[in-house]
Amino acid sequence: MKSHTKYLEINTEKEREIINITDKVQDEITNSRIKEGLVLVNSMHITSSVFINDEESGLKQDFLEWLEQLAPYKPFQYPKGYLHHRTGETNGDAHLKRTIMGREVVCAVTKGKLDFGPWEQIFYGEFDGKRRKRILIKIIGE
Amino acid sequence: MKSHTKYLEINTEKEREIINITDKVQDEITNSRIKEGLVLVNSMHITSSVFINDEESGLKQDFLEWLEQLAPYKPFQYPKGYLHHRTGETNGDAHLKRTIMGREVVCAVTKGKLDFGPWEQIFYGEFDGKRRKRILIKIIGE
Amino acid sequence: MKSHTKYLEINTEKEREIINITDKVQDEITNSRIKEGLVLVNSMHITSSVFINDEESGLKQDFLEWLEQLAPYKPFQYPKGYLHHRTGETNGDAHLKRTIMGREVVCAVTKGKLDFGPWEQIFYGEFDGKRRKRILIKIIGE
Repeated sequence: MKSHTKYLEINTEKEREIINITDKVQDEITNSRIKEGLVLVNSMHITSSVFINDEESGLKQDFLEWLEQLAPYKPFQYPKGYLHHRTGETNGDAHLKRTIMGREVVCAVTKGKLDFGPWEQIFYGEFDGKRRKRILIKIIGE
Repeated sequence: MKSHTKYLEINTEKEREIINITDKVQDEITNSRIKEGLVLVNSMHITSSVFINDEESGLKQDFLEWLEQLAPYKPFQYPKGYLHHRTGETNGDAHLKRTIMGREVVCAVTKGKLDFGPWEQIFYGEFDGKRRKRILIKIIGE
Repeated sequence: MKSHTKYLEINTEKEREIINITDKVQDEITNSRIKEGLVLVNSMHITSSVFINDEESGLKQDFLEWLEQLAPYKPFQYPKGYLHHRTGETNGDAHLKRTIMGREVVCAVTKGKLDFGPWEQIFYGEFDGKRRKRILIKIIGE
């Protein structure tokens, strides 16, 4: 069994942003020379996500608006505000948004490629950005 | 290390449907002759899910009704409608529903079997059906 | 390739509770002597979760209150109540809460350690507790 580990650095321009990282993941699979196995891609932070969906700009905006409904920055349904903010943080919503979108994806590697359906693309979803963050790519196989 | 890859085809009768695929996953584990390892099961599409829950018909209906609340077909809380629909698509809600339910599961394979608790069953959740879709099963181990 | 399987038993004092299990997962990685690979950690039940977030008591309470909004014990938005309750069960909400939080995490093992960002911690989230449950840890690698 072989393994290959890569840390991607990312620093978004906006507080909330969705960035396509599919090519970077495929590059590491190629670098690893692993032909058959699994690749794990995860955010190393607890206010951002890695997920798979469609590369379509309207949909990416829909995701951000929908997340604002389900996990609002100002939790009007929860009058006292996020308890997490008692620590001085202001990113309670980002922890919840990331939970909806997920921390990680695990993908099949077949014949040296991401074994994907026609529309699958890997995204990094940032919900508390404008700072240096890291994404972990770990590939195991043969 | 051995690996085994299988693509299941699925074509639901309804637009939204939840289908138990546990036996099909176990069959591929048996076919692979892998005794110890991991199995990845994922939808290859971005409007359907693979998830683990209970085989109970009322609960499956509860999931569909709950998803309709959290990610409605007609987003009344979002008056202009899904931006994704500007592309001509009408399945914005399906992308969101699939996000709640998840794209994939990773399960342990122990002694050649799905290493499951008493009620765990694997489901394919379709939110934009009546067309041919694929599920990927990838098993790695020894 | 080596593999290592461990079943953790857990019995929460409260109906709903979030418990940090990071050290127990790291202990099993150490016991396995696997230096490079992947670790799967999953709930073996369908009303509880394994997820990664921050060890902060306010945030843990925020998660529980937020889940009660998204998947309420008494589904006021769904007047007839959960159909799952026709079976005699009363834990319909727990199946939905667990779906939001996720069943499993897959983490990288690098140099014999959980390869984590600065704030990542692994939690067991119980939504139908006060009974014996199990968590599965499966490590594969070399």
